[in-house]
Amino acid sequence: MRIAVINETSAADRNADIFAALDGLGHEVINAGMKKNGEKPELSYIHTGLMAAVLLNAGTVDFVVGGCGTGQGFLNSVMQYPGVTCGHILTPLDAWLFAQINGGNCISLMLNQGYGWAGEANLRFIFEKLFSVEWGSGYPPHRREPQRQSRELLGMLNRITHLSITEILRKLPGEVVSPVAAYPGLVETMESWKGTDAQILSALKTRLKG
Amino acid sequence: MRIAVINETSAADRNADIFAALDGLGHEVINAGMKKNGEKPELSYIHTGLMAAVLLNAGTVDFVVGGCGTGQGFLNSVMQYPGVTCGHILTPLDAWLFAQINGGNCISLMLNQGYGWAGEANLRFIFEKLFSVEWGSGYPPHRREPQRQSRELLGMLNRITHLSITEILRKLPGEVVSPVAAYPGLVETMESWKGTDAQILSALKTRLKG
Amino acid sequence: MRIAVINETSAADRNADIFAALDGLGHEVINAGMKKNGEKPELSYIHTGLMAAVLLNAGTVDFVVGGCGTGQGFLNSVMQYPGVTCGHILTPLDAWLFAQINGGNCISLMLNQGYGWAGEANLRFIFEKLFSVEWGSGYPPHRREPQRQSRELLGMLNRITHLSITEILRKLPGEVVSPVAAYPGLVETMESWKGTDAQILSALKTRLKG
Amino acid sequence: MRIAVINETSAADRNADIFAALDGLGHEVINAGMKKNGEKPELSYIHTGLMAAVLLNAGTVDFVVGGCGTGQGFLNSVMQYPGVTCGHILTPLDAWLFAQINGGNCISLMLNQGYGWAGEANLRFIFEKLFSVEWGSGYPPHRREPQRQSRELLGMLNRITHLSITEILRKLPGEVVSPVAAYPGLVETMESWKGTDAQILSALKTRLKG
Repeated sequence: MRIAVINETSAADRNADIFAALDGLGHEVINAGMKKNGEKPELSYIHTGLMAAVLLNAGTVDFVVGGCGTGQGFLNSVMQYPGVTCGHILTPLDAWLFAQINGGNCISLMLNQGYGWAGEANLRFIFEKLFSVEWGSGYPPHRREPQRQSRELLGMLNRITHLSITEILRKLPGEVVSPVAAYPGLVETMESWKGTDAQILSALKTRLKG
Repeated sequence: MRIAVINETSAADRNADIFAALDGLGHEVINAGMKKNGEKPELSYIHTGLMAAVLLNAGTVDFVVGGCGTGQGFLNSVMQYPGVTCGHILTPLDAWLFAQINGGNCISLMLNQGYGWAGEANLRFIFEKLFSVEWGSGYPPHRREPQRQSRELLGMLNRITHLSITEILRKLPGEVVSPVAAYPGLVETMESWKGTDAQILSALKTRLKG
Repeated sequence: MRIAVINETSAADRNADIFAALDGLGHEVINAGMKKNGEKPELSYIHTGLMAAVLLNAGTVDFVVGGCGTGQGFLNSVMQYPGVTCGHILTPLDAWLFAQINGGNCISLMLNQGYGWAGEANLRFIFEKLFSVEWGSGYPPHRREPQRQSRELLGMLNRITHLSITEILRKLPGEVVSPVAAYPGLVETMESWKGTDAQILSALKTRLKG
Repeated sequence: MRIAVINETSAADRNADIFAALDGLGHEVINAGMKKNGEKPELSYIHTGLMAAVLLNAGTVDFVVGGCGTGQGFLNSVMQYPGVTCGHILTPLDAWLFAQINGGNCISLMLNQGYGWAGEANLRFIFEKLFSVEWGSGYPPHRREPQRQSRELLGMLNRITHLSITEILRKLPGEVVSPVAAYPGLVETMESWKGTDAQILSALKTRLKG
């Protein structure tokens, strides 16, 4: 899987822990957001939510690992967009159930609240379980079919209730979209992946200047 | 506050616990969804998410308490719509932080996973803390201003990325919207409240038959 | 490892989950306590704590998995005796840290509070992590030495502060010791294991009648 | 209530949070252990467990709030002694149930693992619930009587299985008992309280030099 890790400013110091916890699981991991608290340019969860949505909708990555202090901010931010199913994941059990039942493409981690000593081990256990099961296989087995139907309905209504990501990129105010479009490495990451949707990339680049 | 409790089928047996836990806190509580597992008509989280969004957008209630087995399904469902900020709330601390930092109008509870003996006491503690603080007051105090800005940006981009709720009600397929429109008591609840938006109510009633 | 699973009455219905969760990890598992809520004879946490201590001190088993509704009752009961180090284990992280830092021979699980749907999966994850690391290896690595010293001091003062288990078996009132000594299968389990301490077994059998 | 807060070295930096969280609840709070990580003399959980047991057995305090990185070390240390019932308390619900069901005189907090941002608020919520109910009143109400019986049996067998605290103070090796006896303020705290058991205080003072 191609996975983007995207940290906003308040929990940017967890970036190294997340990266280390994903290591060795056989995925291609892109460090798309902040690496350290206080570095410039800063991204708030408003920005990282948009960045996650752009990377997912463009097909540049298959999965986004995001989060914020409590996990609620990034969750609500990334869920504004089409093409995103996001879980609020605190434990290995949450991860294991979310992968099977919801089959989403994004998780929001709680990276300051309750994040203490040995938090990096908990992240490792979360990722182990998240990637240990068949995506959308359902749990428990006899609920497989209604859960699949709910996921399909969710995907269908997601396309109805939202504007397309290119329209959104066109309409969002500069203070939201430009820090994302101009974030060091983002356009390069998208350009370097053959599967990236050219139209979405182009819509993003149009907003580089505001 | 006017609060709607909205349960889908898998965790409908928690409805009485939620109701009891909200008792005595001085709010007007409307039991809008299912009351018992297995009763007909059944609502999935696809339906309860729409029901929550309609009640909030129409102004019939100020706040929705929803959830599902893990809390992730209702969360992702209700977040498809405009006008909703939803927290995934498992502990009193989650509730207390969400009220202050995110100032949302909806919570999704985990009602089967990890819901065991004394779960009803945990719900009571969650609601005590949720309604013990000033909405959107920020936490900690020195982060009040950037948190307020993020909430405002979130609200603004929420209006940009979504169709209006009336358009959505017009476009959703019958299998999603009709079980909601026809759910016993919903239209009556909306009609009986003077503050309900007439246009949204009308859009809902148009879909009563599919 | 030889592991005894010991359930008291209030959470006896979790016995099958615990057993299933230990399956396939390569241990010899003995089901020493209750299997179902309400079956006779009943054991309270007072009895299961003593049973655990007897099996550990006699060397019949290397490890005990116990618990009760909240986990606090069995924990306090089993900790009355010499030769026991017990962790209160709720998550895979708790298990992983306890094995490395405390290197104990007993855990107390929370089997009603917070034990809901998918609780059996959480148990499986707990046991995976509990038995995935070297016992008492320390965590993090640079704290290995002071943690080892603390464990040694703990073991030493444990022998000073308590009577021996044989003296205890002699002195305890019949209402505590007899239901344990007479519990179906216990004496047989101890007799069938060559490593069982003959003196402790004999002291237990003396109390069969009260 | 007279409450002692007793921190060992690894989590001594939480001391101020614990103190603040106990403020305003109407109790007399004594800060008996470490106040800051790294200050001298250092106390390990081996020492704080003994200190807690001495203060409780001597009647100098009614309740001890202790803990360590995971909470398991202090728990196992303090449980070596007579006269102690200790809960491993992570949430307000744990506290509320422990007070009612176990009616103990000591809690062990998890002060590094999972202790992150807003941890001080969680402590405040824990103490609010811990001291909000009648000690040993039972939960749920219909289980009051068997729970009371278990507590009584636990207290009775606690006296049988342990040496008395004065004997223990006489027998423990110097490396365990002297750092406690000589800890700044401890003897003074005990001497200044009229209810302190003179024999236990005397036994402690005898060990000042090793």
